[in-house]
Amino acid sequence: MPGNTLDYNSLFNRNLPAPPAQWTGHPKYNFIGGHSDPDMVPMEGFIEAAGNVFRGDPRNISMYNFDGGPQGITPLRQFLVDKLASHRGINTSLDEILITSGSGLAIELINEILLEEGDTVIVEEFSFSGALGNIRRRKANMVAIGVDHDGMNMDQLAQALEDLQSRGVRPKYIYTIPTLQNPTGTVMSMERRFRMLDLSAEYGVPIFEDECYADLIFEGEYENAIRSLDDSNRVLHIGSFSKTLGPGTRLGYIVAQWEVMSRLLSRKNDAGTGVLDQMIVADYFNNHYEEHILKMRAALKRKCDVLASALRESFGPNVEFEVPRGGMYLWVKLPEGVDSRALNMPALREGVAFNPGPDWSADPDAAASYIRLCFALPSETEIWEGVEKMAEVFRKEGALP
Amino acid sequence: MPGNTLDYNSLFNRNLPAPPAQWTGHPKYNFIGGHSDPDMVPMEGFIEAAGNVFRGDPRNISMYNFDGGPQGITPLRQFLVDKLASHRGINTSLDEILITSGSGLAIELINEILLEEGDTVIVEEFSFSGALGNIRRRKANMVAIGVDHDGMNMDQLAQALEDLQSRGVRPKYIYTIPTLQNPTGTVMSMERRFRMLDLSAEYGVPIFEDECYADLIFEGEYENAIRSLDDSNRVLHIGSFSKTLGPGTRLGYIVAQWEVMSRLLSRKNDAGTGVLDQMIVADYFNNHYEEHILKMRAALKRKCDVLASALRESFGPNVEFEVPRGGMYLWVKLPEGVDSRALNMPALREGVAFNPGPDWSADPDAAASYIRLCFALPSETEIWEGVEKMAEVFRKEGALP
Repeated sequence: MPGNTLDYNSLFNRNLPAPPAQWTGHPKYNFIGGHSDPDMVPMEGFIEAAGNVFRGDPRNISMYNFDGGPQGITPLRQFLVDKLASHRGINTSLDEILITSGSGLAIELINEILLEEGDTVIVEEFSFSGALGNIRRRKANMVAIGVDHDGMNMDQLAQALEDLQSRGVRPKYIYTIPTLQNPTGTVMSMERRFRMLDLSAEYGVPIFEDECYADLIFEGEYENAIRSLDDSNRVLHIGSFSKTLGPGTRLGYIVAQWEVMSRLLSRKNDAGTGVLDQMIVADYFNNHYEEHILKMRAALKRKCDVLASALRESFGPNVEFEVPRGGMYLWVKLPEGVDSRALNMPALREGVAFNPGPDWSADPDAAASYIRLCFALPSETEIWEGVEKMAEVFRKEGALP
Repeated sequence: MPGNTLDYNSLFNRNLPAPPAQWTGHPKYNFIGGHSDPDMVPMEGFIEAAGNVFRGDPRNISMYNFDGGPQGITPLRQFLVDKLASHRGINTSLDEILITSGSGLAIELINEILLEEGDTVIVEEFSFSGALGNIRRRKANMVAIGVDHDGMNMDQLAQALEDLQSRGVRPKYIYTIPTLQNPTGTVMSMERRFRMLDLSAEYGVPIFEDECYADLIFEGEYENAIRSLDDSNRVLHIGSFSKTLGPGTRLGYIVAQWEVMSRLLSRKNDAGTGVLDQMIVADYFNNHYEEHILKMRAALKRKCDVLASALRESFGPNVEFEVPRGGMYLWVKLPEGVDSRALNMPALREGVAFNPGPDWSADPDAAASYIRLCFALPSETEIWEGVEKMAEVFRKEGALP
């Protein structure tokens, strides 16, 4: 018998997705995902921070959850308490913050404690692919609400809540990315934030506020978080460090009161979030956050302008998009009838990668003519060249006149 | 309506475990978990490594999976290829290694791709609590096999496989910690390793080999991994960096061929394992592994001897244990009839923490009279004092004559 290869196909869980293709490297013109600007990674700052933290107590590394316990190390949570107060208007405390391994894990944990198969959640019609995928994997139902320049449409939301209630359905949450929405880049108006809280109270449905991008407003004062307006534990608030420092730092966070926090902890089975990341980022940000974020915002704004100009030059009137007030994406509409999924492989063959809109849509077909472009990673030259190449490919494929 | 607090109890997933108590700090005499020796954390080495890696390409941080793609960064996987060859006899390649956020996530991923509710797995009667808990959470059945000085009992294993086959049950895997078993500290003989592979082939059941502790053999040559004897993809092999560097570094790994690797990747939804950890550990270990591990082993051996002496002094003939060839635990048997779970809180009140045996047992009651003690974290003085205090408490509670 030895020598026969084991047949795993008959052993695998029968609900697995199709396996991915083997990884073959990054595309030359890379507009996908949430990659960030390499010139904005504070490499010298990280060396300085490492020098500081690795001269500290070695039990931070030799022990599980040495400093601060299972919710994350104290200096990083303290940084968040301060930053959320000064930048987002949120009044919170160390006890209400949970550090997670990226905000993806924050979404996973919140879904884990709230969702069962067959549950209903409310989402924005276009939204973060990772959040939508997580909800789909759990076989929960999504009710999609339109998003315009001022964020989620509150009349539609009120109507949806009313309809669901009349059918005896209480949604588990309203998932929103109010500030620099992903992918549309819109910012919800203050009026709508207040209205959403009222609706949350009226129907007893929590708001799941994802502020992954809120730090990346290009300039000026901007809208406070919905969580800052909430005095009744109605808002579960999450955020990320991946967008301000780079996704190599796998750090996100959840703000929630103990009733919810204790449940999150009961499902956080990862033996703690990476402490090296936490220590280095806490030290760097406690010393350099303000200067870093100003530099980052300015750099992103420049690249955003370049991408917008490149699109206008190469695509002319064949694309529609709104230049956002911040963030790292343009949400671009191709001519009606074009299916961006069909353009993906032809573009990749020419070294150009973009995200087809359907991955960022509760109803994939509703976003068939959209693409999402991330402008943070490529250099200005790469943006110009990449967009030109993309237009060539799209033209060759008959997607543009 | 606003002002009413939202009632989350009616929203939570109904299958959640009880929420934990709020964290109140670490115990003074800490013999629990897999904490490691603070004096053995190479803090200066980490500063040097950080200086090296943060002078490298910033795209390691600004991009998801920049160097090496979703399986982990190349230098860390190369270190593992080399170490597994030189220390564990395993002939593998970069393509067969997946870096995970701790070996707990390795177990999670393997279970995720193989297990469904109602499946059967084979485990050692005493085994890693995290693995047992993960299997239980998935509502899979466990068949427990005895462990003696030479590891898992192969006659019992053969019998169990035969019995299961006769009932039409094909177990999904045989989970074993062959080298410095957790909690018993035993090392499976080479003869049994060969026999296990034969049984795996005969019954078409993979071996899930967990070698989290194998690097921590105190001295001399020792048994190669079961994976090193396997030419037919029968063994899924995992390991960890938490035990050689400290659990603050959340890094583990899986060795598996593409058929399995591709499925693991399809379920690895964490956007990559923390790159700062990977970079620093890869640089440090590529330069200093051999000297580090020798120092670590010697330090652990000293503490192991201290704990054994302290137990003999404070408990005398009332405890039985075998001094292991390595690792960081003693698996200690209290007098028959004692239930270690009942001693947990009284000891904690005196500042002494140990792991009750039942958490490390497929059948909790079968390990009622056992406790697991980790000797890596406490200082020699703390070991002496802690064990004395523990004996006092146990005596006061009537567990010792």
